[in-house]
Amino acid sequence: MLSSFGQTVKVSVFGGSHEPAIGVTIEGLPKGQKIDMDRLQRFLARRAPGNNAFSTDRKEPDIAIVKAGLHGGVTFGPPVTIIIENKDTNPSDYRTLKNIPRPSHADYTARLKYGEHLNMSGGGPFSGRMTAPLCIAGAIAIQVLESHGIKIGAHIFSIADIKDEPFDAVHISKEKLERLANDPFPVISENAGLAMQEAILVSRETGDSLGGVVECCAIGVPAGIGGPMYDGVESALSQVFFGIPAVKGVEFGAGFQSTRLKGSENNDAFYFDGEEENRTVKTKTNNHGGILGGITSGMPIIARLAFKPTPSISLEQDSVDLETGQNTKLVITGRHDPCIVPRAVPVVEAAMAVGLLDLILSDK
Amino acid sequence: MLSSFGQTVKVSVFGGSHEPAIGVTIEGLPKGQKIDMDRLQRFLARRAPGNNAFSTDRKEPDIAIVKAGLHGGVTFGPPVTIIIENKDTNPSDYRTLKNIPRPSHADYTARLKYGEHLNMSGGGPFSGRMTAPLCIAGAIAIQVLESHGIKIGAHIFSIADIKDEPFDAVHISKEKLERLANDPFPVISENAGLAMQEAILVSRETGDSLGGVVECCAIGVPAGIGGPMYDGVESALSQVFFGIPAVKGVEFGAGFQSTRLKGSENNDAFYFDGEEENRTVKTKTNNHGGILGGITSGMPIIARLAFKPTPSISLEQDSVDLETGQNTKLVITGRHDPCIVPRAVPVVEAAMAVGLLDLILSDK
Amino acid sequence: MLSSFGQTVKVSVFGGSHEPAIGVTIEGLPKGQKIDMDRLQRFLARRAPGNNAFSTDRKEPDIAIVKAGLHGGVTFGPPVTIIIENKDTNPSDYRTLKNIPRPSHADYTARLKYGEHLNMSGGGPFSGRMTAPLCIAGAIAIQVLESHGIKIGAHIFSIADIKDEPFDAVHISKEKLERLANDPFPVISENAGLAMQEAILVSRETGDSLGGVVECCAIGVPAGIGGPMYDGVESALSQVFFGIPAVKGVEFGAGFQSTRLKGSENNDAFYFDGEEENRTVKTKTNNHGGILGGITSGMPIIARLAFKPTPSISLEQDSVDLETGQNTKLVITGRHDPCIVPRAVPVVEAAMAVGLLDLILSDK
Amino acid sequence: MLSSFGQTVKVSVFGGSHEPAIGVTIEGLPKGQKIDMDRLQRFLARRAPGNNAFSTDRKEPDIAIVKAGLHGGVTFGPPVTIIIENKDTNPSDYRTLKNIPRPSHADYTARLKYGEHLNMSGGGPFSGRMTAPLCIAGAIAIQVLESHGIKIGAHIFSIADIKDEPFDAVHISKEKLERLANDPFPVISENAGLAMQEAILVSRETGDSLGGVVECCAIGVPAGIGGPMYDGVESALSQVFFGIPAVKGVEFGAGFQSTRLKGSENNDAFYFDGEEENRTVKTKTNNHGGILGGITSGMPIIARLAFKPTPSISLEQDSVDLETGQNTKLVITGRHDPCIVPRAVPVVEAAMAVGLLDLILSDK
Repeated sequence: MLSSFGQTVKVSVFGGSHEPAIGVTIEGLPKGQKIDMDRLQRFLARRAPGNNAFSTDRKEPDIAIVKAGLHGGVTFGPPVTIIIENKDTNPSDYRTLKNIPRPSHADYTARLKYGEHLNMSGGGPFSGRMTAPLCIAGAIAIQVLESHGIKIGAHIFSIADIKDEPFDAVHISKEKLERLANDPFPVISENAGLAMQEAILVSRETGDSLGGVVECCAIGVPAGIGGPMYDGVESALSQVFFGIPAVKGVEFGAGFQSTRLKGSENNDAFYFDGEEENRTVKTKTNNHGGILGGITSGMPIIARLAFKPTPSISLEQDSVDLETGQNTKLVITGRHDPCIVPRAVPVVEAAMAVGLLDLILSDK
Repeated sequence: MLSSFGQTVKVSVFGGSHEPAIGVTIEGLPKGQKIDMDRLQRFLARRAPGNNAFSTDRKEPDIAIVKAGLHGGVTFGPPVTIIIENKDTNPSDYRTLKNIPRPSHADYTARLKYGEHLNMSGGGPFSGRMTAPLCIAGAIAIQVLESHGIKIGAHIFSIADIKDEPFDAVHISKEKLERLANDPFPVISENAGLAMQEAILVSRETGDSLGGVVECCAIGVPAGIGGPMYDGVESALSQVFFGIPAVKGVEFGAGFQSTRLKGSENNDAFYFDGEEENRTVKTKTNNHGGILGGITSGMPIIARLAFKPTPSISLEQDSVDLETGQNTKLVITGRHDPCIVPRAVPVVEAAMAVGLLDLILSDK
Repeated sequence: MLSSFGQTVKVSVFGGSHEPAIGVTIEGLPKGQKIDMDRLQRFLARRAPGNNAFSTDRKEPDIAIVKAGLHGGVTFGPPVTIIIENKDTNPSDYRTLKNIPRPSHADYTARLKYGEHLNMSGGGPFSGRMTAPLCIAGAIAIQVLESHGIKIGAHIFSIADIKDEPFDAVHISKEKLERLANDPFPVISENAGLAMQEAILVSRETGDSLGGVVECCAIGVPAGIGGPMYDGVESALSQVFFGIPAVKGVEFGAGFQSTRLKGSENNDAFYFDGEEENRTVKTKTNNHGGILGGITSGMPIIARLAFKPTPSISLEQDSVDLETGQNTKLVITGRHDPCIVPRAVPVVEAAMAVGLLDLILSDK
Repeated sequence: MLSSFGQTVKVSVFGGSHEPAIGVTIEGLPKGQKIDMDRLQRFLARRAPGNNAFSTDRKEPDIAIVKAGLHGGVTFGPPVTIIIENKDTNPSDYRTLKNIPRPSHADYTARLKYGEHLNMSGGGPFSGRMTAPLCIAGAIAIQVLESHGIKIGAHIFSIADIKDEPFDAVHISKEKLERLANDPFPVISENAGLAMQEAILVSRETGDSLGGVVECCAIGVPAGIGGPMYDGVESALSQVFFGIPAVKGVEFGAGFQSTRLKGSENNDAFYFDGEEENRTVKTKTNNHGGILGGITSGMPIIARLAFKPTPSISLEQDSVDLETGQNTKLVITGRHDPCIVPRAVPVVEAAMAVGLLDLILSDK
């Protein structure tokens, strides 16, 4: 099992929900970069559970501890290693599930792969908790990108069939992205947000769960990053995006919707923007999501990630008992997120940030 | 610019539409594998243009010539290199476009990246023609996979808003996949196919273009391949899929549709299938597309790829003249596919085959 | 700066001599492997300074703390992360050297590369202390290799011009390697060892330093591991060997000596060894050091590494003051190893073990 | 079997001595680089056999044919693929050896690894002929490096125990390197050269063979390239050097000789060179071979490679018959180099050039 990705900025994640620690090593960061650890800590808090009624009320105090790579809060070349010590590693809550895999969870395939050796209590390396180290790397990447004038933001695009307004793919202001980053339930339309919250509460009461889509963007990315074919921006970002648990679809720009448009509708006309001296080439629409031929165009990069509904539900389900070899019924007890999507928003931002930073620093 | 991917089976593509040759080097194939070159040649022909009214009538005779790595048609360890000599490399057709980038094509970003050095005539490394080397690698991977009992197939899932029947994600027969592989316009529903062909002809007449979705599956893949996080099957396959020109979205299993389901609807219940001795764990539904926690479950692997409409249309479009610095109008002449989707079907199969073979041979 | 190597078993080192911790993450270890942490700790102690009069009397308590990847002392698939907390990180001893680079030390080139951002106190990432994480990885690799019947050992081949007896390259017993592993000053010839110790003590008194050669072997390695060209055993091992600070030369088998032999003298004749049924192909001599064409032959693998004399000496030296721009004299104070070679022996074993394990597990 | 190396400049070699072609794909070259193909062809000729009495009189016309990646002789971003068609692939000369491995040749280990599938006639992927594609890549890298002011050169340092004068490691002039590049038997001391040639002729007459050492240098390499540990210059270069067939040892700077020096003798004192404004830091001696802590110091880079004597000799040797399972005698007929060292000189230059170019272009 490999747990790393990246060419220039290599991110390597380790640990699990019931090991002594989880953490991340990041190689290849530019030297001399000041990292604001308070801000990193606040970013981590956005992912943490128990912040409000829409998530599980488990408490995981995620304190990022720098072990290596920063002198006075500044990178200086060698890899940065940051860990989170696990306080509560009592696996008792999960023990009854050991031989009965939860439907659509990784229990079954993890057992196939790791057999007796993997204590799946709490999800092990498949735990949603493993997105915390990604968020640490992302919080750092976000700070590095901002020093290059690049800003990343995301919002809940949809929960079940309740849709937020999409990003205006042509004009996205830094202010809007900052407002979203400070919103515990980040949506563009207040009404859509209220309807989503209502749906999540209903889902929680019925013991069921909901999925949704997160839309993420990056503005200020220079044109000309990436390359054709397997070196392209979509290839690189999708690899990181699909590394987030529960993601089952990724699209850029108009994505699947573009397949229902004619070429004359989908094509983004070029024009010169700005005065004589500073004119830059832009597109009137942005169905290409800021990427043409695998290379950034200078327009905002737009991606949407589909999160399936949380597989852990309280309703009785059909499953198998791998010990007895019999079909059986399963009722999962314990505390679970009725909808992972709100907590996934910073994770998607982190993935976008880390992926983009690697692309930019790898670019020739 | 890197043009390679893969961990164990490394595929490295070279050449361009107006260079002496295009080709591919494949490292890491198992030794002793017989490669049927006639079958490879027939697979290549499925991608070739000019086969019928639904594609461009340009003729590109794609003859695969083995340069290295096969003795008597059998792999023996060292890398396999196969090339296609380019016969017709007269760039005159394309020359007028030089300073006026085609909207939603890679012309503009390619120029940003490669500047004066890239002769973009015919698309260079961005040309759809570069999918031919991928098809060579795919045709080989398909043959290797078949010797492991794995079969890959694909069909046109939709063109514009005309939908074919989807694969039955739980039961897909080898026979159905073989029938599709021999169908010049591979669809499951004959009526849907006729409607699609009609729509393409109308589009051609109006000088416009259409996009669509290709659905691809793999059956017989052993359970337990892949790993959590960035080592997962979706991460690996999506990297190859997004390397295909014009792909703007990738989803696995129920994909984006799963975000509109409740957990109780989306979860795939486990059950024991078969007699006492040979019973295997299966799922009653297959919304997970054969992949749970990044690891194969043994159920069919299902992926869908969104192809945007071909950007080359005959209608007048707004663009910029990069030499004069003025906004301008552009009319593209010459022969173009009104819809790339039918020719993309074998390309998607090739990408799935190469990606899966690398995953399987890299698996520990 | 990248700090990792390996294809299947990826070793990633982090931290520095005056950071909170140093440590290592090892991906790709086989699952279900029991790791004896006491034995690992004893292996680490062999590298630690202050054990006897032949090394510096600085004390660095190197306690290996498992942070992730072991359950009940057993690997289970995910990466293993082990750290050593740094107790004494007071950089005052080193501060005066800041602008005057020590001759033949990495001070000057480190400053070129990392500039103001690198606090070179204590050597930073260039410190010999960074071999401790390699020894952790090596101690684990040694245990994994032993479960495959492979044994690794090393001895001091020479200090200055005092030579130990070389390994008998054809027959090396497990017992001899075990005896060497328990010897605080591992040599084959007792007399040579006494002469070396005497030379080191003299060198210490005169404020000078000595270099030497470490000879390392691996027995029980299966024949057929590796591959031609850049995939060969020598290529892979030398990359790790030259990653050890102070190594300036690496040779396999007869190495540089083979260039002074005729083909008829250097060629290792094949013969069948053993009874009818179990006969194996062996060579009468082993000038090839167990590697032919980049592939293991089944004979013992033999490598020798040249360690230059420690650059830190007490004698006055010529250097430059990078702040004033003037040539200057430098006198280094503080405690230093008069000869690093004895402490390098387990480091070389660790490098050989990690490199070989990666080769074996990557082999197809 | 992987046949590629490099991070930014990836070199991938394919083909074999009795396949249709041999060739190389080079990814990651800077765009806009003019490649002088005539000069490349002349470089290839230096490696070709049959040029004089000191090598085999087999004739292999090595004509480099560009298949992809150059427009008008200029790189433009995509990978460069160049092949050499094999004219004379009649394997009859070698057939009798099939079941009797030549001592110290790769026959035996190749058979272990590739079994029946590898037609070892002519050496297959183990053939010295596979250094021709490396020379193609090297000839290109040399031209790119020269446009950065870097010059590479090499000479025969020794044949058996006859030694040439070494490079003056502190001052090496461009002119000297150019003279060596045009010398069919490149040595610094004319007398040493004559003695070597005499020794080779004697060796040929007696049916034996000789080995030797090649010394290679690079001048003009900027200071600050590389990094500590596994990212160091020695690690990267040695991986390529040991990929050359017959290389059994690699050393940098004073190498193994430094182990016999005291620290006070081996340390290279720093001083300021040049006038006030343009003063640069240099060292009075260059025992470090231009590399300190894995990072270039700005002094000439010096490496020496040990080539074992050619294993193919005419004298009768002991071997085994792998078919009959009996010990046997072997007499090799046919034409063979009595000493590969003179032809290895451009190969070493090529390896140094490709390795250095990758290091420089990968450097952050």
